[in-house]
Amino acid sequence: MAEPFDALELIKLKRDGGTLGPAAIDWLISRYASGTVADEQMAAMAMAVFFRGLDSTELSAWTTAMINTGERMDFSGLDRPTVDKHSTGGVGDKITLPLAPLVAACGAAVPQLSGRGLGHTGGTLDKLEAVPGWRADLTNEELLHQLAEVGAVICAAGSGLAPADRKLYALRDVTGTVESIPLIASSIMSKKIAEGTGALVLDVKTGGGAFITDPDRSRELARTMVGLGADAGLPTVALVTDMSTPLGRAAGNAVEVAESVEVLAGGGPADVVELTLALAREMLALAGRADVDPADVLASGRAMDVWRTMIRAQGGDPEAPLPRPRETHQVLADQDGFLTRLEALPVGIAAWRLGAGRARKEDPVQAAAGVVMHAKPGDRVTAGQPLFTLQTDDPELIPRAAAALDGAWTIGDRPSAAGPLIIDRIG
Amino acid sequence: MAEPFDALELIKLKRDGGTLGPAAIDWLISRYASGTVADEQMAAMAMAVFFRGLDSTELSAWTTAMINTGERMDFSGLDRPTVDKHSTGGVGDKITLPLAPLVAACGAAVPQLSGRGLGHTGGTLDKLEAVPGWRADLTNEELLHQLAEVGAVICAAGSGLAPADRKLYALRDVTGTVESIPLIASSIMSKKIAEGTGALVLDVKTGGGAFITDPDRSRELARTMVGLGADAGLPTVALVTDMSTPLGRAAGNAVEVAESVEVLAGGGPADVVELTLALAREMLALAGRADVDPADVLASGRAMDVWRTMIRAQGGDPEAPLPRPRETHQVLADQDGFLTRLEALPVGIAAWRLGAGRARKEDPVQAAAGVVMHAKPGDRVTAGQPLFTLQTDDPELIPRAAAALDGAWTIGDRPSAAGPLIIDRIG
Repeated sequence: MAEPFDALELIKLKRDGGTLGPAAIDWLISRYASGTVADEQMAAMAMAVFFRGLDSTELSAWTTAMINTGERMDFSGLDRPTVDKHSTGGVGDKITLPLAPLVAACGAAVPQLSGRGLGHTGGTLDKLEAVPGWRADLTNEELLHQLAEVGAVICAAGSGLAPADRKLYALRDVTGTVESIPLIASSIMSKKIAEGTGALVLDVKTGGGAFITDPDRSRELARTMVGLGADAGLPTVALVTDMSTPLGRAAGNAVEVAESVEVLAGGGPADVVELTLALAREMLALAGRADVDPADVLASGRAMDVWRTMIRAQGGDPEAPLPRPRETHQVLADQDGFLTRLEALPVGIAAWRLGAGRARKEDPVQAAAGVVMHAKPGDRVTAGQPLFTLQTDDPELIPRAAAALDGAWTIGDRPSAAGPLIIDRIG
Repeated sequence: MAEPFDALELIKLKRDGGTLGPAAIDWLISRYASGTVADEQMAAMAMAVFFRGLDSTELSAWTTAMINTGERMDFSGLDRPTVDKHSTGGVGDKITLPLAPLVAACGAAVPQLSGRGLGHTGGTLDKLEAVPGWRADLTNEELLHQLAEVGAVICAAGSGLAPADRKLYALRDVTGTVESIPLIASSIMSKKIAEGTGALVLDVKTGGGAFITDPDRSRELARTMVGLGADAGLPTVALVTDMSTPLGRAAGNAVEVAESVEVLAGGGPADVVELTLALAREMLALAGRADVDPADVLASGRAMDVWRTMIRAQGGDPEAPLPRPRETHQVLADQDGFLTRLEALPVGIAAWRLGAGRARKEDPVQAAAGVVMHAKPGDRVTAGQPLFTLQTDDPELIPRAAAALDGAWTIGDRPSAAGPLIIDRIG
């Protein structure tokens, strides 16, 4: 059968700076989802888009085409409003884990469809799979049922929901085409629009550990996504937040679950608590529950109750010990002073090299792999104390992980002033 | 086992304008050949190279790495010199078919390892496979034996010879990454250096139907390849030749074989004869046989004798009728006058859309598909006469092929002056 378009011609058109028409984009995305357009062709197209961009008409068509490859969910039958959060990804960004049960405990429903590891940042599903028995894949019926019964679901986007995005997301992950504003924006918004959430809060990371390091480009991404939300009738607010240093004190899989449980228990690192509460307030405002203070709910222990119920509902055992690594390696401070700088990207790369992330989309990840940070910027340190514990099941991975941390931190005579965690709000 | 490099990091490094070290390039190419680096990763890398280029050190390392993935052949045991020709590809470029037997008939041996269809230009092997029974795949022993006995071989690069190039060539063909000077130069030269030819003549096409349309960039490609040849001790000369209009009067598979046989029989289009003889003279000069005039040998019928022997040696029947299409469609002249312009690229695209080329590397090609041109620039035409006959087995392919020819030619009141076929010589 004659096809109306040809993948090779479309790749060359974009490569050479041309504009793809809406029908061509719809054809490309639908045929990629169905397998007529091959992975290697889409990888080349994605790299051409990285260099050439997509204009607003192309971007809108690309997003719609991704939604059209699958079904759209509908949560209007629930007895409470739905609101979701999406982060563009950072190092140590486990915020979804405490946030979803917290917002659910505050009275909104959170249908959190998450992804797997993307480059040097961890994936929420990879982290939760460190919980013994927990499964990421739910049917739409299970998702709806859990949302009604528990109020919070963190799961993989069902295979019926924007399947082109699912496929393209995995492809970009291994082909160096993640860091593209139009591809990031269309990926996120197609999935969120298709999932049927009633409102959306975006956490757009900026700084060395984010996919976009420049705050102005991060704002551009935030505006692009808020605009795509508005076009689709989805109330969307974005916070631009700092990712120059890791969030919290753990980057990896099981180590981040453990830290999240600390937050739900009323403890945990201050930055993780701050961002969790800020995002919860935005979500509750969009959901019409601005009257509830999430800090009170967190303190009450009700968020922890929802966490346990949520984990159990997906087969997990919230009381079971988390996987422990077969090998650990410590990096020690070489002088006394204050930690004045700790770069997010090297920590993310170290965790990735330890096995917490993947180099190929088929690769497994190690549940116990990761980096534990014993000091954060501002903390006093003494010579010889551990700064990092590297965890992995494969000792051969340690040298390159440790090498990633070379030059990643500074110890100074006095603490330096930290910048704000929440840099901007775009609504 | 820990790998010394990571494909994703290398893709990002090149994407962001960095320089790949020789060890990284050797790792990338060898792991791509072995399958550790996936097709989609190499496609993204190739597109990044398209945008960022390779410097001379990277290019040399890339070429060497491709050679190192396989074996190197040795023809030094033959009783005559070897010399090969390579064309960068054009529309209607069947020159290899008459040239290889002609040069063999002049006393040099021609080990012509050719490729399959590459974008809108045909592939020599695809063309020859239109000959009933002919097979492109020979073992190295068969190749050596045929070279000694017949003096000319046109076959596929053996799977042991620069296997990384073979794989990358097929990938670039479907991912819009053909038109890159470093990728073209390293692909051609790695294969030619590994194949062990004693000398090499390059036909670097320029103009609308070539992969590189700008004469200065074509010269740059020619100089790049002549330089790589010199570095490897392989005497190399390049002709830069015009590809603004198709070569000869046929573009496709069987139709080009038929035209080649006309040339070997002493007839055929003047441009095909001119270029065949010019390339033969360069090859004979490099092979130390400048005393033989290929025009005399062509007229003597000895080149046709070698053609028949060469085809039979690879299982083909040179007397068998060539495949004929199930459908033909004619495009007629709309006025009297002279054909003043006939663009190569639209003719190549039309032939490709008729089934002579492929959109995916797994696709088959149609032996009988192609475009026959009943007029060339300079020819007088009359309203209503056929300008083109489109041939295909699938009538559904005709409308888009015919559409490609819209605006591809001009009929004027008087013939316009043609430019030279041979534009430059770089030695």
